[in-house]
Amino acid sequence: MDRISMFTAAAITWRERVTNANTILLVTHVNPDGDALGSLIGLMMALPQLTEATIIPVVQQPIPQYLEWVPGSEQSIALTADKPWPNPDLIITVDCASADRLGGIAPQHMHHIEHTAVIQIDHHATNTLFGVHNLVVADACATCEIITEFLPYLGITITAGIATPLLLGIMTDTQSFQIYDTSAKTLSLGASLFTAGADHARIVSKVFRSTRLEALTLASRVINAMHTHGDVVWCGVPLTWVEELNATDDESDEALHMLQRIEGPEVIMLIKQRNQGVKISLRSRNVNVASVAKKHGGGGHIHAAGINLAEHTIDSAAALLLPDLTALCTDSSPSTNHSA
Amino acid sequence: MDRISMFTAAAITWRERVTNANTILLVTHVNPDGDALGSLIGLMMALPQLTEATIIPVVQQPIPQYLEWVPGSEQSIALTADKPWPNPDLIITVDCASADRLGGIAPQHMHHIEHTAVIQIDHHATNTLFGVHNLVVADACATCEIITEFLPYLGITITAGIATPLLLGIMTDTQSFQIYDTSAKTLSLGASLFTAGADHARIVSKVFRSTRLEALTLASRVINAMHTHGDVVWCGVPLTWVEELNATDDESDEALHMLQRIEGPEVIMLIKQRNQGVKISLRSRNVNVASVAKKHGGGGHIHAAGINLAEHTIDSAAALLLPDLTALCTDSSPSTNHSA
Repeated sequence: MDRISMFTAAAITWRERVTNANTILLVTHVNPDGDALGSLIGLMMALPQLTEATIIPVVQQPIPQYLEWVPGSEQSIALTADKPWPNPDLIITVDCASADRLGGIAPQHMHHIEHTAVIQIDHHATNTLFGVHNLVVADACATCEIITEFLPYLGITITAGIATPLLLGIMTDTQSFQIYDTSAKTLSLGASLFTAGADHARIVSKVFRSTRLEALTLASRVINAMHTHGDVVWCGVPLTWVEELNATDDESDEALHMLQRIEGPEVIMLIKQRNQGVKISLRSRNVNVASVAKKHGGGGHIHAAGINLAEHTIDSAAALLLPDLTALCTDSSPSTNHSA
Repeated sequence: MDRISMFTAAAITWRERVTNANTILLVTHVNPDGDALGSLIGLMMALPQLTEATIIPVVQQPIPQYLEWVPGSEQSIALTADKPWPNPDLIITVDCASADRLGGIAPQHMHHIEHTAVIQIDHHATNTLFGVHNLVVADACATCEIITEFLPYLGITITAGIATPLLLGIMTDTQSFQIYDTSAKTLSLGASLFTAGADHARIVSKVFRSTRLEALTLASRVINAMHTHGDVVWCGVPLTWVEELNATDDESDEALHMLQRIEGPEVIMLIKQRNQGVKISLRSRNVNVASVAKKHGGGGHIHAAGINLAEHTIDSAAALLLPDLTALCTDSSPSTNHSA
């Protein structure tokens, strides 16, 4: 179905569900990133144009430091075990591929979700379609891209307050309009958010130009210890390095950003040591790393996927994944190289 | 004058000059960057829709490695002293603020320029208006942005071959749509280039993801030796470091890119040692570093300027410029902080 038909049909359901609700819970995925928070805050700012319902924005706390500044995010709460379930009659999930990845809701409350109407908006190809209505557009670069295009179908005017979180999500998920799925549509929708008054300067300043020196130092140490296996480049981040350099776990992603700029490698793997096991991030230029992530219990997108392995060390995780990743590059190198 | 009136008027002159010419020289500035080369190659690809004139693309050789791939750039030549002057009846200069910064033309040939009709298209606020017609749009992010908007006024259809170099120039000069001058217009024009078939994947791969490991290593060494003076952060790049690490002079710009992502500093200064003196790059978030550059014989834009100082060392250049730069931050910090 093309986007126009999809959005037209979805708008009918959304209007009915949203206008008839008394209490709406907005929820997104665990470990929220710019697109997760941007989608959620964007909708939180937008829905009052359509409904007088009480809107409760639920986000895992604390919000990552680089996103704390987003106006409206200070209204978000986590539904911890000590808080009562607010008895929403509608749950809207954004940017979340499956119900078990919803964030900011204590395990004790999770059973309520099964008994509440869920509608969702998402761009993950791996979405399990767990809602009563699922607006999933897998070729969109970001959930914020879908919301930007969808809001006018609901008769909602995009104000500056709505535009800033939506542009945040588009710019973070596209790595500033660089990922290969970026399209004319992505840029046009971005332009419309500029016109609506999105605070582009603040997004750039807070998200793309707020790296701490500690993060750069950690990244350069990680990169100096890089390993190369054919078309795969991988690095490990021992916990001791993060602690020694007074960096945070999030900040080792700086190494990932830097590695993505290196010429040559088809696949990049960053393995972060955790208190329990390791967390693995996979990035590719062309090949589908989501397939490897899925095989090992992870998920994500074609060019950006992740896996948590509770029982592994950095070296054992590398040994586990490298055969699959190098095979992936060998299988697909002749036909899919964009830069050939 | 608004852009529509400006472009309408310019189109009349351009049509007349271009259609009546027999030989057209396209020239851009010394040390060409993505916007310089993109503008020149974009026009080279576009003008045959308007004229049967011989078009000679003049670019300082060799073209920087990260731009070598641009289709059409292999046709460019430098007019070295051993080559005859091709007797153009029209010179079009792109992205060049003053005639003395034109690149790829031997000093012996430069006097010919005074006796040839020059029309120019540029976005530098410091443009000296040295042409018989000067299409200078100082609020455009890139000369390629102006050309993208202007070509339809000439009745020229933007093909994929034209779109790729133009998108290259927009993406490099805006640092991937991040500089604060990026506007809704920039994104809309970018979208139109995507639609025209610009090879976005190749631009990203070749320009933003082709950093050599040597460049990253050099950058991390430079950053580890960083100095902070109030709101100014500065680094020096001794020639010996570049040589030891098997990096190139261009590659020390990687440190500049990394420094621009650090939170906090208002002004960033990178001082590269040269065989003769030093080359200084200035970047700012808000304040006008072009004013300081100009005072010391350099030039550039409000947020990105440069100076060559033949008689200085890294330390003496820092001592010379730091008072002006810190004064700049003190003067303007209360009113112009975007991220406040």
